[in-house]
Amino acid sequence: MTSYRITLLAGDGIGPEITAVARTLLEAVSARHGFSLQFDPQPVGGAAIDATGEPLPANTLAACRAADAVLLAAIGAPRFDALPREQRPESGLLALRSGLGLFANLRPVKIIPALAAASSLRPEVIEGVDLLVVRELIGGIYFGTPKGRIEMDGGVRAFNTMVYTDHEVDRIARVGFRLAAGRRGRLCSVDKANVLDVSQLWRDRVEAIHAEFPAVELSHMYVDNAAMQLVREPRQFDVLLTSNLFGDILSDEAAMLTGSIGMLPSASLGSEGPGLFEPVHGSAPDIAGQDLANPIAMVLSAAMLLRVGLQQEAAAATLETAVDRVLAAGYRTGDLLMGEGCTRVGCQAMGEQLLAAL
Amino acid sequence: MTSYRITLLAGDGIGPEITAVARTLLEAVSARHGFSLQFDPQPVGGAAIDATGEPLPANTLAACRAADAVLLAAIGAPRFDALPREQRPESGLLALRSGLGLFANLRPVKIIPALAAASSLRPEVIEGVDLLVVRELIGGIYFGTPKGRIEMDGGVRAFNTMVYTDHEVDRIARVGFRLAAGRRGRLCSVDKANVLDVSQLWRDRVEAIHAEFPAVELSHMYVDNAAMQLVREPRQFDVLLTSNLFGDILSDEAAMLTGSIGMLPSASLGSEGPGLFEPVHGSAPDIAGQDLANPIAMVLSAAMLLRVGLQQEAAAATLETAVDRVLAAGYRTGDLLMGEGCTRVGCQAMGEQLLAAL
Ligand SMILES: CC(C)[C@H](C(=O)O)[C@@H](O)C(=O)O
Ligand SMILES: CC(C)[C@H](C(=O)O)[C@@H](O)C(=O)O
Repeated sequence: MTSYRITLLAGDGIGPEITAVARTLLEAVSARHGFSLQFDPQPVGGAAIDATGEPLPANTLAACRAADAVLLAAIGAPRFDALPREQRPESGLLALRSGLGLFANLRPVKIIPALAAASSLRPEVIEGVDLLVVRELIGGIYFGTPKGRIEMDGGVRAFNTMVYTDHEVDRIARVGFRLAAGRRGRLCSVDKANVLDVSQLWRDRVEAIHAEFPAVELSHMYVDNAAMQLVREPRQFDVLLTSNLFGDILSDEAAMLTGSIGMLPSASLGSEGPGLFEPVHGSAPDIAGQDLANPIAMVLSAAMLLRVGLQQEAAAATLETAVDRVLAAGYRTGDLLMGEGCTRVGCQAMGEQLLAAL
Repeated sequence: MTSYRITLLAGDGIGPEITAVARTLLEAVSARHGFSLQFDPQPVGGAAIDATGEPLPANTLAACRAADAVLLAAIGAPRFDALPREQRPESGLLALRSGLGLFANLRPVKIIPALAAASSLRPEVIEGVDLLVVRELIGGIYFGTPKGRIEMDGGVRAFNTMVYTDHEVDRIARVGFRLAAGRRGRLCSVDKANVLDVSQLWRDRVEAIHAEFPAVELSHMYVDNAAMQLVREPRQFDVLLTSNLFGDILSDEAAMLTGSIGMLPSASLGSEGPGLFEPVHGSAPDIAGQDLANPIAMVLSAAMLLRVGLQQEAAAATLETAVDRVLAAGYRTGDLLMGEGCTRVGCQAMGEQLLAAL
């Protein structure tokens, strides 16, 4: 029987609760589909700071590197905000992305009809929205040097460097084009080429790589206009290709269009080695440990792990169908809009419904 | 009789049409309120490239410096997109902002009840939205050095520098706090301090300046979360304080919440010297010269010029009242939603209605 190693990073806040649900479902679905999963739980983020003093212990990174795929719940808690930035949970996440070479972050945003009423947008504007943000994840201003803070005569100056090489743009552009070719065939590359040198290189390289994918329709959009167009007419987009910082901003904006960010999974991939799968939402410290969390984004991230990380398409589809069934049956966690005939459930009960629906 | 010099920058696209409307109204309203305006039209952007080869001729900058206030319509046209960035219309705008020391860009976003139906957001989400984006305008990654493109062994690397000094943050923070104090007393400062050194300095200085404005309630929000929250619940914001790049993105997103960016004015101010007043919308080359443009954002920018630039509050209010009346009477340009009993008008006819309503 095929067996895969999954590093399980529960992290902080609601992380452990939603991880428990995902693990149970993954065990059931793998048994059903004739493969086995070995789970290796490791600390990361605030949990790792508490255990080892560091947000990404060397053991955790080594375990992730040795795995077939990594499932991460969420990191971060207010009590670490006072630490210097390099010691905070977020820095562990950045080091993990970089350490695994995960340059491509995929964030699908799709309206679930049963939940469309939760959106702050008019139904006719969000109906049928199905877009994918492809965000460069280990370059740009997140990792650029020089950076720092310098005391000057009578003052202070702080700075970061937004930087891309042609190689970095080319590889993320290829991911974007390839994914667009498998969808509706349209790629919109986002930049600020009217102001930034780094965006001009981005645009030039995306144009150059376009020659390898002549069947994909390419357009360019300034980031400020993209932020507008996502509100005005989100249906116009198929795949959005972005740098690290622009993708951070636009993917969160796009996620909120659905009104249910407790439903959105993501995948982060490198050119080889394991991928990292995680919900788009955060660690929600305010509701942690109260059995209130919505585990669905985590379960859908587990489905992406099965499909993209392990090529277990049938098992992924089984999980996703279970989610559809439970929503159709009216089960809702507290973050989701309650409609006529809906039943409010906690995190654990939602997990049990999902298991029953498998 | 008091007399003011106004440099008039019609720029490109629909610029000349909406400038003509604003000028006629300014002449009428100044006569009514007992002061006179001397208009000095100067080329900028594409119009200046055509006339002189440069997007910001030295004469234009000198005329602006000598004026009491500057009214700019819009710049940019597709046929200049192939030029090197420094020679494009946009670079003229950046040089103008920088040359006049306009570090504070004010972008009010307010729902006009008669036009609320044009928003892609649900009425209950946008009802009563009244926020102000205060954007730093002559620092940050727009102007930071080093920047450029370097050929390396077998590749290219392009980069920009995002940089702020304590002095730059302090002065824009003071503008934000002062404006918040005159409104609902809440300032939300936007940054990415969990990742960027420059954002950490931003946050530290905003905290420090807060001591001068103890009556204002200060909060901090990461830029990705701000992009989300603007969609989720825009009413939560009073004043948003942002760096140059984050303000570019968030102010356009916020403007689009209204559904009518043809209605939104802006002001750019320095510590001394004339302010620059301009609509938030662009030069709309697709409808230029066809008498289709909406002149209202330009007229409201002229009202801001009167109020903020010349301290002519009564005259500003007269102009704004005329806009309200004409909208209440149902006159709409093509970009605005037509309701029951509305009359479609062109740019010039809208100008005539506004003049009649004065
Ligand atoms: C937590 C933070 C460092 C991270 C980012 O900015 O990438 C988060 O916002 C995300 O989008 O995954
Ligand atoms: C035209 C462009 C350079 C400009 C900017 O990025 O500042 C515009 O988008 C704006 O917001 O005024």
